[in-house]
Amino acid sequence: MTEGTTRGDNVIYIGNKPFMNYVTSVVVQFTTKNASEVSVKARGKFISRAVDVAEVSCKRFLKGEIRVRHVSIDSEGFTNEEGKDVRVSTMDIVLERV
Amino acid sequence: MTEGTTRGDNVIYIGNKPFMNYVTSVVVQFTTKNASEVSVKARGKFISRAVDVAEVSCKRFLKGEIRVRHVSIDSEGFTNEEGKDVRVSTMDIVLERV
Repeated sequence: MTEGTTRGDNVIYIGNKPFMNYVTSVVVQFTTKNASEVSVKARGKFISRAVDVAEVSCKRFLKGEIRVRHVSIDSEGFTNEEGKDVRVSTMDIVLERV
Repeated sequence: MTEGTTRGDNVIYIGNKPFMNYVTSVVVQFTTKNASEVSVKARGKFISRAVDVAEVSCKRFLKGEIRVRHVSIDSEGFTNEEGKDVRVSTMDIVLERV
């Protein structure tokens, strides 16, 4: 459990903490915690950041050791504070050991 | 034709034009131009927007008519104006007719 970024089943939720916190979480899951796969999830504007975290993890910190297994996108509708129906996009990037 | 690639010029690059311009482009490709698939591509911070464009197209404007076939992420390294090596994430969302 690093800085509240990792919950439950090897899932890392991307938010506005420092970028390297999330990369470190991915690395720790695969190394110290010996996970076989890790899911990087984000909503809305944090989606771009989730892709950056996945790419930096795969291409730099764990190069040759992990890869992207699957990327999925979706969206959820909900009613915001002003009572307006809005939709937010979501993304799930599953990383696996090579 | 492999996953993540599309025929011809059915490619829509997401930038900072008004959001609906991109959604309209997707709709026009599938309707007026009768495309069988359309690729929505973005780099860096525009990746979140590309997901929004794909989701709004699939879940609202062409609901039941198109769906996400494949999502891929990658990154490109290059040297910026200050001579620094940087990496930018990229995304390709392939939409297809249901």
